[in-house]
Amino acid sequence: MHTIGMPERHVPDIVVARLPLYLRALSALQLEGHAFISSKALGERLGIGPAQIRKDLSLFGDFGRQGKGYEVSVLLARLREILNIAHEWLMVLVGAGHLGSAVANYSGFAQRGFRLVAVFDNDPQRIGARIGEHVVRPASEMEQFVRAHSIRLAMIAVPASAAQAVADVLVHAGVRGILNYAPVTLNVPPGVRVENIDPVLHLQHMTYYLGEDGDEAIVSS
Amino acid sequence: MHTIGMPERHVPDIVVARLPLYLRALSALQLEGHAFISSKALGERLGIGPAQIRKDLSLFGDFGRQGKGYEVSVLLARLREILNIAHEWLMVLVGAGHLGSAVANYSGFAQRGFRLVAVFDNDPQRIGARIGEHVVRPASEMEQFVRAHSIRLAMIAVPASAAQAVADVLVHAGVRGILNYAPVTLNVPPGVRVENIDPVLHLQHMTYYLGEDGDEAIVSS
Repeated sequence: MHTIGMPERHVPDIVVARLPLYLRALSALQLEGHAFISSKALGERLGIGPAQIRKDLSLFGDFGRQGKGYEVSVLLARLREILNIAHEWLMVLVGAGHLGSAVANYSGFAQRGFRLVAVFDNDPQRIGARIGEHVVRPASEMEQFVRAHSIRLAMIAVPASAAQAVADVLVHAGVRGILNYAPVTLNVPPGVRVENIDPVLHLQHMTYYLGEDGDEAIVSS
Repeated sequence: MHTIGMPERHVPDIVVARLPLYLRALSALQLEGHAFISSKALGERLGIGPAQIRKDLSLFGDFGRQGKGYEVSVLLARLREILNIAHEWLMVLVGAGHLGSAVANYSGFAQRGFRLVAVFDNDPQRIGARIGEHVVRPASEMEQFVRAHSIRLAMIAVPASAAQAVADVLVHAGVRGILNYAPVTLNVPPGVRVENIDPVLHLQHMTYYLGEDGDEAIVSS
């Protein structure tokens, strides 16, 4: 049993979703040399109300100091603990096409604690090719690799028609979190998390508010 | 004043966010030859409860047919109208590095009604280079281009340190929706929408639930 880093009470998922945003902003503030930050200043950076920030963070403890705000380094360390990213995570990527290649080359993962350790594809034309620092491995080796290295996180960047089958193999091998770039909803058993990245869904979310020709933005949401 | 496609009552943003998911699933169902779909079957595909789906859609009208469920083509057409994507949107992309190149090459935008019409960068090494069907244009021409073509949507794939300045120029020129790939929160005036794509935020959201070593998934959220 772990106790450090485990939530002590039920935290709404919408609050959990904001914690990485706080972490990202606090990391930037630390780089800029700030030792303390008020909930007001943090809120202005994030477009989130200061009361909401105080409420969110109070679920995990008492971090603020009267009159000085939050101590950036302390809050950063605690957020990393809460999000279970105090240590590095290993990931695999499935799919080495245009999108997969871009994902494999993205330096932000390693900088922020997520290390891509293998790239898989089932296309003979791609197997053996270099992508960044990786040599593309045959998809047939994926299950064994995931098991052997106790991989818990995977990214899927294959065509929509292939994504569910890939997810099934990954989950069977022990993966518990999938970042899904394929434009399809994956079905996974309880205990497995999926987060989706489909830019078109975001664009359509925005055009709802923009009106037919983009000239009639509805301000409130 | 437009009336078609404008919401008739206040719709919570969390419902708006689900509409593109419904659209995506219904498009797939149509391709598979389904003429009707029940809220139960649609819900199973999406991992969303059927009652939630019925409630969401009832905000926009009465689409279900007793015993037959939703007529796929009718619901698709109505969703496209509601999301203001019955016509094609034009977009620009700022940033022609690794990530920007992948974004520019992504075929899913055009297939789903969003046409990339120009790519900008301020790096002399990149200006003039070809990315897919685009020749990278100098960032200095961005404002004029956006105005001349009444562009309302833009994608930003520049380093975090440059993203806010790019957003300011775009908004000043008339952009009302920004898909932001830079790992930083953008400040924009009321009436401008920003959606963010930062894969690390999604990974951190998942690791919260996975426990310290990924072996203790918390099933509920």
